[in-house]
Amino acid sequence: MEASTAQRRRAAPPTAVLGIVGGGQLAKMTAQAATRLGLEVAVLERAREFPAQALDTRSSFGDWNDAATLIEFARGVDVVTLENEFVDARALHALEAAGHALYPTAAMIELVQDKLRQKEVLRAAGLPVADFRRVESPAEVAACAQDGFGWPMVLKKRRNAYDGKGNATVRTPADVERAWKEPGGGPGVFYVERFVPFERELAVMVARGRDGASVSYPTVETINREHVCRVVLAPAPVDSRAADEAQQLARAAAQSVGAVGSFGVELFHLRDGSLAINELAPRVHNTGHYTIEACDSSQFDNHVRAVMGWPLGSPRMQVPAACMVNLLGAGAGSGEPLGLVNALAVPGAHVHVYGKLSSSRGRKMGHVTALGASLESARATAERAADLIRFGEDSPS
Amino acid sequence: MEASTAQRRRAAPPTAVLGIVGGGQLAKMTAQAATRLGLEVAVLERAREFPAQALDTRSSFGDWNDAATLIEFARGVDVVTLENEFVDARALHALEAAGHALYPTAAMIELVQDKLRQKEVLRAAGLPVADFRRVESPAEVAACAQDGFGWPMVLKKRRNAYDGKGNATVRTPADVERAWKEPGGGPGVFYVERFVPFERELAVMVARGRDGASVSYPTVETINREHVCRVVLAPAPVDSRAADEAQQLARAAAQSVGAVGSFGVELFHLRDGSLAINELAPRVHNTGHYTIEACDSSQFDNHVRAVMGWPLGSPRMQVPAACMVNLLGAGAGSGEPLGLVNALAVPGAHVHVYGKLSSSRGRKMGHVTALGASLESARATAERAADLIRFGEDSPS
Repeated sequence: MEASTAQRRRAAPPTAVLGIVGGGQLAKMTAQAATRLGLEVAVLERAREFPAQALDTRSSFGDWNDAATLIEFARGVDVVTLENEFVDARALHALEAAGHALYPTAAMIELVQDKLRQKEVLRAAGLPVADFRRVESPAEVAACAQDGFGWPMVLKKRRNAYDGKGNATVRTPADVERAWKEPGGGPGVFYVERFVPFERELAVMVARGRDGASVSYPTVETINREHVCRVVLAPAPVDSRAADEAQQLARAAAQSVGAVGSFGVELFHLRDGSLAINELAPRVHNTGHYTIEACDSSQFDNHVRAVMGWPLGSPRMQVPAACMVNLLGAGAGSGEPLGLVNALAVPGAHVHVYGKLSSSRGRKMGHVTALGASLESARATAERAADLIRFGEDSPS
Repeated sequence: MEASTAQRRRAAPPTAVLGIVGGGQLAKMTAQAATRLGLEVAVLERAREFPAQALDTRSSFGDWNDAATLIEFARGVDVVTLENEFVDARALHALEAAGHALYPTAAMIELVQDKLRQKEVLRAAGLPVADFRRVESPAEVAACAQDGFGWPMVLKKRRNAYDGKGNATVRTPADVERAWKEPGGGPGVFYVERFVPFERELAVMVARGRDGASVSYPTVETINREHVCRVVLAPAPVDSRAADEAQQLARAAAQSVGAVGSFGVELFHLRDGSLAINELAPRVHNTGHYTIEACDSSQFDNHVRAVMGWPLGSPRMQVPAACMVNLLGAGAGSGEPLGLVNALAVPGAHVHVYGKLSSSRGRKMGHVTALGASLESARATAERAADLIRFGEDSPS
């Protein structure tokens, strides 16, 4: 009685098949948007079980850093896109060379993967970034301090760093030596950045089409805890000049690297009111989840439109304010959302459960969005519902 | 490299599995809502290819009127719900007798399946319905005309009728004789209803929980073409007294039949300003699609909450007005949405493509919803986008 994979793969989908490399919550929410537009979704995953699994007509299991696996996956789809920016750029170039449509492009991913190159491109485009320098030894880091950066400085890994992982605030030459010698340290690994005391962290989602047309979503404030995004306030409680400037910078940043699709730009709002671009996330982004309920077209809808070569939708907010609160794992345990029923009883709370099979401390297990007439009311609703859900409390953390 | 069905069925989903009997667009949109809440979805379908196929972790192929097939399907799921109300009630009773959770219940489905019994229950509950009578022969129909109904009257099939199919306006005894002799006519098939000249058709979606708690969505106006819903205006452009009364009647109707889940109530707004319940749709309903974008909790979200036994979400509209326009097949052809790209360029148009593999004249292929500050602006946007999409024009209709 049960369906075989062959049955699940439809003979001739009426529109097209979107292939997503990676099957986490970002792929799941992208798949939600894609299926609404009549697309079918195929997912390539390394894990046997993953959040987007319920939403694809075809799951492929394999190593996305292997060019042959990527090309085999791409054979059954019309356009390939990525859930994460850490896929081996050589494999992505091979995919394009084999004639497959990949958005964002291999060149863009390769550029953004190296945060030092990312910063160099942004600076070359005249966009504001904190002072930074390429460094090849601890001595060169210390020299930066003498050369105007001062202590402390931030030592940042060029690759495979996210959610603050790979960043270290160094206060003395001894701190630098220590970081250099840690596993994964060494020559070519780091660059150094001037420590920038900021007032708040802002973010802007941009959606940029294959034709270069772009739209930017409202500037939001992100409130982090232990370097992980916990709360997003939309729009950010900043003056309109700063909000507008952040959106302009974000669109310019997306253009400077040749972005296609939804694209996150994180910024620092400095104490003097100026802005500096912190880093780029070349994909749908946690700071844009609120757009599902709050905006005409969500970041996921616009990602799909962009990579398919379709017109972008309006990023306008339909309501005055929105707040998103992440649901982070409290510890190791199952993926069961304890207290879900209580959270669902909070009027106006939009609860998203990603469906991960296990929780770990700080793991993103879901989120809650609330809309409101003011940031205060939206935040109160979202926080109230989020406080009622717990993951990973069913066994000791 | 490809996934087997076994891989798709996850070992231990963190929440639960919702089984849906039927895999059309209503199941697809229900699955979208269910997966957002962390549920997984299984679908039982008679067709090998269907719109919800992209959104389930397990497709079962089989006849849903067969009790053994239903019970086998239910073994792998926590709660079973229905996409359509035409499943054999004996099979549904057998499913419940085997200990499976089915919402709405077999008793409710059995009741609503017979429009005559439906009307009898509504009348017994004191709810306003057009005069109707059980009839067993053409002579009994004609007698109704003499007995106060007058000509014309409406001869309605008791079972398996939707979108106006099975209803005939009869103007003379000869019309009645003709209808009686048509294929599918005969004794026990029809009941007769007084012809009610109405001003407009209204509808209200109700969501009712397993505990009997219910919420009602705003009263909407439905504009039909050839008996098929074409446009829905939310809220209906009627005075608040009529709108409120329609909502009260709808909640009372849902209670009278023991509804669980989302539940559509169609009403006539008569020329004297009074209301009459036309018929019940014991499931998510075309007139409630606008709730996806317009309301705090959509009809699909609340259907899932209701059948799972979870608290209902708020049915409040987040914006002043919304309009939904159905995308109906122009003729026979593929399911490809011609002009989709043009429609996506209309700002504020939310385009839904169901992903059906083929079109036929009048078939529901998708819909467009637009929100606005007024019904006029929302309708203009939705109609503009809908006019740009065509299905089934790729071959002669």
